[in-house]
Amino acid sequence: MLRLMAPKGERLLGSRNLTATFGSSECNVLVSLANMGLPTGFITLLPDNEITHSFKKELRSFEVDTNFIIKKEGRFGVYYIEQGSNMRSTKVIYDRDYSSVSLGKPGDIDWEKAFEDTYWYHISGITPALSESLCDLAFESVLCADKMNIPISFDLNYRGKLWKWGKSPCDIIPKFTEKASVIIGTEEDFNTCLGVEGKSPNEILSKAKEICPKAETLSIINVQSKSANYKIWKGEMLFKGNYYESEEYTIYNIYDGIGGGDAFSAGLIYAQNNFDEGESIINFAICAGLMKYTFVGDYNLATVEDILNVMKGNKGSINR
Amino acid sequence: MLRLMAPKGERLLGSRNLTATFGSSECNVLVSLANMGLPTGFITLLPDNEITHSFKKELRSFEVDTNFIIKKEGRFGVYYIEQGSNMRSTKVIYDRDYSSVSLGKPGDIDWEKAFEDTYWYHISGITPALSESLCDLAFESVLCADKMNIPISFDLNYRGKLWKWGKSPCDIIPKFTEKASVIIGTEEDFNTCLGVEGKSPNEILSKAKEICPKAETLSIINVQSKSANYKIWKGEMLFKGNYYESEEYTIYNIYDGIGGGDAFSAGLIYAQNNFDEGESIINFAICAGLMKYTFVGDYNLATVEDILNVMKGNKGSINR
Amino acid sequence: MLRLMAPKGERLLGSRNLTATFGSSECNVLVSLANMGLPTGFITLLPDNEITHSFKKELRSFEVDTNFIIKKEGRFGVYYIEQGSNMRSTKVIYDRDYSSVSLGKPGDIDWEKAFEDTYWYHISGITPALSESLCDLAFESVLCADKMNIPISFDLNYRGKLWKWGKSPCDIIPKFTEKASVIIGTEEDFNTCLGVEGKSPNEILSKAKEICPKAETLSIINVQSKSANYKIWKGEMLFKGNYYESEEYTIYNIYDGIGGGDAFSAGLIYAQNNFDEGESIINFAICAGLMKYTFVGDYNLATVEDILNVMKGNKGSINR
Amino acid sequence: MLRLMAPKGERLLGSRNLTATFGSSECNVLVSLANMGLPTGFITLLPDNEITHSFKKELRSFEVDTNFIIKKEGRFGVYYIEQGSNMRSTKVIYDRDYSSVSLGKPGDIDWEKAFEDTYWYHISGITPALSESLCDLAFESVLCADKMNIPISFDLNYRGKLWKWGKSPCDIIPKFTEKASVIIGTEEDFNTCLGVEGKSPNEILSKAKEICPKAETLSIINVQSKSANYKIWKGEMLFKGNYYESEEYTIYNIYDGIGGGDAFSAGLIYAQNNFDEGESIINFAICAGLMKYTFVGDYNLATVEDILNVMKGNKGSINR
Amino acid sequence: MLRLMAPKGERLLGSRNLTATFGSSECNVLVSLANMGLPTGFITLLPDNEITHSFKKELRSFEVDTNFIIKKEGRFGVYYIEQGSNMRSTKVIYDRDYSSVSLGKPGDIDWEKAFEDTYWYHISGITPALSESLCDLAFESVLCADKMNIPISFDLNYRGKLWKWGKSPCDIIPKFTEKASVIIGTEEDFNTCLGVEGKSPNEILSKAKEICPKAETLSIINVQSKSANYKIWKGEMLFKGNYYESEEYTIYNIYDGIGGGDAFSAGLIYAQNNFDEGESIINFAICAGLMKYTFVGDYNLATVEDILNVMKGNKGSINR
Amino acid sequence: MLRLMAPKGERLLGSRNLTATFGSSECNVLVSLANMGLPTGFITLLPDNEITHSFKKELRSFEVDTNFIIKKEGRFGVYYIEQGSNMRSTKVIYDRDYSSVSLGKPGDIDWEKAFEDTYWYHISGITPALSESLCDLAFESVLCADKMNIPISFDLNYRGKLWKWGKSPCDIIPKFTEKASVIIGTEEDFNTCLGVEGKSPNEILSKAKEICPKAETLSIINVQSKSANYKIWKGEMLFKGNYYESEEYTIYNIYDGIGGGDAFSAGLIYAQNNFDEGESIINFAICAGLMKYTFVGDYNLATVEDILNVMKGNKGSINR
Repeated sequence: MLRLMAPKGERLLGSRNLTATFGSSECNVLVSLANMGLPTGFITLLPDNEITHSFKKELRSFEVDTNFIIKKEGRFGVYYIEQGSNMRSTKVIYDRDYSSVSLGKPGDIDWEKAFEDTYWYHISGITPALSESLCDLAFESVLCADKMNIPISFDLNYRGKLWKWGKSPCDIIPKFTEKASVIIGTEEDFNTCLGVEGKSPNEILSKAKEICPKAETLSIINVQSKSANYKIWKGEMLFKGNYYESEEYTIYNIYDGIGGGDAFSAGLIYAQNNFDEGESIINFAICAGLMKYTFVGDYNLATVEDILNVMKGNKGSINR
Repeated sequence: MLRLMAPKGERLLGSRNLTATFGSSECNVLVSLANMGLPTGFITLLPDNEITHSFKKELRSFEVDTNFIIKKEGRFGVYYIEQGSNMRSTKVIYDRDYSSVSLGKPGDIDWEKAFEDTYWYHISGITPALSESLCDLAFESVLCADKMNIPISFDLNYRGKLWKWGKSPCDIIPKFTEKASVIIGTEEDFNTCLGVEGKSPNEILSKAKEICPKAETLSIINVQSKSANYKIWKGEMLFKGNYYESEEYTIYNIYDGIGGGDAFSAGLIYAQNNFDEGESIINFAICAGLMKYTFVGDYNLATVEDILNVMKGNKGSINR
Repeated sequence: MLRLMAPKGERLLGSRNLTATFGSSECNVLVSLANMGLPTGFITLLPDNEITHSFKKELRSFEVDTNFIIKKEGRFGVYYIEQGSNMRSTKVIYDRDYSSVSLGKPGDIDWEKAFEDTYWYHISGITPALSESLCDLAFESVLCADKMNIPISFDLNYRGKLWKWGKSPCDIIPKFTEKASVIIGTEEDFNTCLGVEGKSPNEILSKAKEICPKAETLSIINVQSKSANYKIWKGEMLFKGNYYESEEYTIYNIYDGIGGGDAFSAGLIYAQNNFDEGESIINFAICAGLMKYTFVGDYNLATVEDILNVMKGNKGSINR
Repeated sequence: MLRLMAPKGERLLGSRNLTATFGSSECNVLVSLANMGLPTGFITLLPDNEITHSFKKELRSFEVDTNFIIKKEGRFGVYYIEQGSNMRSTKVIYDRDYSSVSLGKPGDIDWEKAFEDTYWYHISGITPALSESLCDLAFESVLCADKMNIPISFDLNYRGKLWKWGKSPCDIIPKFTEKASVIIGTEEDFNTCLGVEGKSPNEILSKAKEICPKAETLSIINVQSKSANYKIWKGEMLFKGNYYESEEYTIYNIYDGIGGGDAFSAGLIYAQNNFDEGESIINFAICAGLMKYTFVGDYNLATVEDILNVMKGNKGSINR
Repeated sequence: MLRLMAPKGERLLGSRNLTATFGSSECNVLVSLANMGLPTGFITLLPDNEITHSFKKELRSFEVDTNFIIKKEGRFGVYYIEQGSNMRSTKVIYDRDYSSVSLGKPGDIDWEKAFEDTYWYHISGITPALSESLCDLAFESVLCADKMNIPISFDLNYRGKLWKWGKSPCDIIPKFTEKASVIIGTEEDFNTCLGVEGKSPNEILSKAKEICPKAETLSIINVQSKSANYKIWKGEMLFKGNYYESEEYTIYNIYDGIGGGDAFSAGLIYAQNNFDEGESIINFAICAGLMKYTFVGDYNLATVEDILNVMKGNKGSINR
Repeated sequence: MLRLMAPKGERLLGSRNLTATFGSSECNVLVSLANMGLPTGFITLLPDNEITHSFKKELRSFEVDTNFIIKKEGRFGVYYIEQGSNMRSTKVIYDRDYSSVSLGKPGDIDWEKAFEDTYWYHISGITPALSESLCDLAFESVLCADKMNIPISFDLNYRGKLWKWGKSPCDIIPKFTEKASVIIGTEEDFNTCLGVEGKSPNEILSKAKEICPKAETLSIINVQSKSANYKIWKGEMLFKGNYYESEEYTIYNIYDGIGGGDAFSAGLIYAQNNFDEGESIINFAICAGLMKYTFVGDYNLATVEDILNVMKGNKGSINR
């Protein structure tokens, strides 16, 4: 999507200036992984116009492969954002109806070809939320990846403003997570999308594991919101049968409150592929997520070195 | 529509900055008339969201009445613009599919109520171009205004990128212009929309008059384009049976090349209601149109005094 | 007043950029009330120039009625502001001498006509501070509103840099507050303007009540300043004979430190007219005041829904 | 004065952004001369506030001496500017009433001390226009400079929006020009301020010479305005009894249309002190004036080398 | 090089804002060719730091291959630019001493490997101007390309501020051009670099052909400078033994006066590879060069379609 | 050095905008002292170009004397900065190789003349770190100041990215500090540069005193970093044989994290020359250091009054 942001401290369109960047859940994860040095590619449907052209230009700059961006009638989705501050919440207005991707339907993408040489497949719960036909197309992808033994990570990512096409997440998401080896969400996501409840993150994750037998990793981002700018994050993870908790990290001056969850997902995927210890994995993912909040836009621009510095306890000292 | 403009000298989305203003043909005419001191109101269909809220806020600031902006499902239309310069053309990308207004259909607006106390009704050829149902709704408005003896001005305003719903302008526009007392266009517009051709503006206008018997005023904007920034304008007008030509005006440094035609229409409507002489009318309209080009955005912000100064021959001297 | 603000982190005129907005105590209250959906109108004296024109344009956009902005010789007042940060204080330079409003004198405004259909009248202690003749004109307004049984709210609003015309606030303000049904201030304001002191807010308000017999509501904003950006607010209120305290609200990243008191006043007036419970009233007013600090400029752009969210405990979570 | 400018293509306060620079006729001449490498100092009256502080900081950066900026009650004058473009004129709104300088009166400045080591004194017709007492103070300066044999240059600089204190320029200016050795103006200035008319610049200058016997140099800037951005300049000069005309210079894209006359004055003063040939003098002054138009703000930032390049026929070729 | 540009109308560092883009002669040609759809790659030496990282990110966005950007000690070159306007010239300050590329020496690049699959090699006269060792490295490249039968285009590109290492262009450049099949320059370049003079472009090109026997194409850009913003361009070309002249094109409002020659070179290379007619080739190259002037920065962002539009006579009309 | 800063929340060159200011350790101290009202002058070596010209213009605006800025071949040093936020560290890229100052060698400056009328000399450990010849030149300055009985303050200021010329700080710095009467550093600086270690600041300072017998004042800035924006500062000082600690000051929203140490040095020098009490001296220095963090750029723009307000406990209340 094209993301159009009002200047800080202003209402949307309160002045003439908008900051235009790109972003959407899966894309954010890919750019984040590319910045960590992993090879990545984006599979999606977009219209054939100058907006798509600019978007592909940006993806290439990050070394995200754009060869599987397929042309399709429809619009380039837009979302408007007014960043919150303090007690004032961030406002998001979606203008993604009739986007090319939401018009997607089974058959639009040759998944076997798209997945050639693929070592990992990531998808979020936003995709099946957009339309019934897209949900079907997305499920096709999961079946294909599963058949080709490509590990799948699934970010539950519940959005109350979406899911307007007739089904509720609980009807749909479990079919996807059944095939996934990594599952990510907030406590609320696990409840809304998988129907699991519990008194503790551990209990929730354990129950989720029961209905997602292939999942080697299930994790929760635990956020305490002191204000739009000031949050305390902690990660919880059930990993190969053991339960891990990250350190608690406080961030006082969030620069842009979007994309933290996507950066966490990317961190988890990276760590999964590079570290063995459960503790390192969950701490790396949490630090990756928080680093996103220090950049404007949807993307996490942090390098692996940046994230490791935070894990080692660096709190913003200058290096010179 | 929301108009999203790239900075000068940059490609669309070449950088993160967009200038967001509002504009659309009929709306531009209204704001221009309001700046000339006339009472105005906008009748349209828009979604119930923050973009509409901001747009109405802006209209109110110009004293354009917003009471006949009716809520409707659908989107708030968007257009992207990359301003040309020199030999490089301005590029416009429309993202107006599924806009509330294009979903409009007969019955959506209570025209009799909307037209109460109305002294003039202006509509452009862009409206019937958007969808068949909107075309029908628009024709309803023209029939109603005609029945209520409200003078109608019609700007032919042909746009090649629109008219995708199955009919060509020649099938449709003549039904509208038959009721209009003022008709505005370029030579190309008269040909494409009304099917009239001729060797001179005079001949074109005379032929058009034959198929638009109610039209007291028919006029052509004659533009010589030296570059995207440098144009020579001249107005031609058939008015109450006589033929008038304006002076030739040269503009060397166009600041924003959109909305000149709408400002001309507003100038013609104002002049029609305030001057008697054909020469004053066509010169005022041309000067109004050119003044638009000195402002950023779709709207003409000139006052009547500003425009009269140009008519009197002022060429940018400072008044202090 | 026209408010000219230096960019953050810069001294005034340290660079060429100034942000120009409008604001003044009473006007801020009106815009804030208009954003809450109440009908409002501004009664004042302003010169007949382009600055006034722009100001009226802005008021109209907020649906504040401008019909009682009366033309008067003199200047459009200006104030320069350098926003503080951390331990550095905000600096304000007034350039309001010889402003039209300060030249105001009894007879300049036809109060009976201005107050037709008025349901509430708000005025602040800044107005009588500006000049003797304006003080007299303002007192005229209070007498007239009182005669017409329009409830009056009075914000004590002591400014040490004003009150240069010969009298001290204690000589003047009590005559105004005697007629008011709502009185607002800080502890220091109550002391400086009404001469009341006390060991607790409750004691101060009780003593003030004694000399303001018509006042149904007396309230204090209690501010703990941790830094220019980080404050703790609490409201105290004597309302229909009972004493109420709000929750304590912490704001960590104030975006613009001007206008919080005016937004509190607006919140109190709105709540007074819409809620019955003392607790709801004082909490709504405090939350309204703090929301202002999340917007740039003097005005509170929060809606009633925004403010209720804060009252319900929302701390900046995203809604999407 | 503080000069507050709207962005190009916008009406004054049409957006929140203002560009704040300093400028006033005499000050512009001094900065221009300082950029040409001459020692300069500014003698004026200003309030004791942060605006003055910033202004002095700027003057020092240009090496203009600030020791004779005297503190005085009153305001720091302001002017608002909306740059014209094409046929649209630049608009200037003065807000200089009650400025410190306009409150100036005889005795405020110790001219003998101020003029110690002074080799040239420049003053413009704007100064006596502001108030009667300032006119008297200014006349004091001229008498003192004359007594101390310091050459005086006088720029007639008629402003229709000033001269509100009771006298017309013709009553006052001749007393000043009688002492001046250099007199500068447009044809209109010579007519309005000195009452001389003529069919040609030569005739006007010759007649002016008769009533200004000390004037060794009298010159006229002849401007043909094609648009606010496009002008043709030519200089005329009566110098030591001979008549000179400059080349005709065309400027197509004026960047900021203020201060050209002041830059011309500075060019004339510089050339007078450094060249012998009348032709060089008038051409240098014209080129200096036009160079101003290529910079934003009131000041001419050109060096002597820049100006000589233009005199030598350079038309914007790159040097690399 | 990193290019740091002052805002228009300001002196370099006259304010705090700089626009940072990248550019250098050969790189500009490559980006221009990439925008025309040709495969391209950049061969150079750069330090291993964040500036290089950003530069490669940008090249990738344009699809310019970065695999032959070799790490080398030294600096990332910088140039500062103050855009001229009207009669004021653009100023360029080079800060490229000790840049990695200028420290380059024979052996630093494996040319045979770099030229694998290469269909064209372009180099400019700026490269040998920077240092003796780089000149030797560059000559190595030309010998290698020649041996591998890769066509070479050479832009003479004389810069008076460079060539400080001891030799003059006439000592060096002819060794390069001897191997080139395309040679590009201004009349002055041909004279300074190849020592050829003549009364007409045709004569100059014919004489140059004599000392560059492999050159199938020799061309001159003929520029008439009316001002920094307003130029008239005409191209001259000796192509396969015949002489061609382009149309004369006028550009009135140059947006950024750098990179026109590089865009011309790219146009010539593209046309050489895609058109057969001499007339089409020279006109395409001229139109490509001028289109550059409509974009900010060193790069030509025009597409082939954009350039063909200009060749077909389009003068900035809007397409909508 | 020219300091080129990326916008907040962006990676270096992530967008086209850079903020260009000047700064370097010693220069920052001087500007800070000038803002406190002390006479100051900068002694350094710079190239003869427009960057130097702008830098001197800025110094003059602050009333820092520029007469001892000596012309020298070489470059004007540059540093690039990406401001950190929260856990993300600030990144600094030095581009100062071959700067004029680093090419400095003994004999380049006539120290006796430069030190005429000098009451204090400040130098930092960055200067000897840049090159061997500059180290020698700097040592010359210290010997000369010592001979002329000018008190010397020395800021240890260790930078790991410098010191590339062959010696380590411990080999060099003690020769400098032996002559200094004021020594400033962090605990790490004392260890790295003077080789002293200790369990407490007091112990470190006492040990340092032993090897710096002339030092009347030795002080440590003690920083607890909670995030890039949120720090707790405390000062420690051994002054005339007694040990002092400042209050602990918390800063929550650092605006620009560079230059705090230099502002502390300036505060210490000012206080040393104006206060007698050790407590006032160390508290003033700490408050001066923190005030820097509220301004963008390297310079502390605080006045003595601003700093005293903080010492008196003011925490950002508005004064109006």
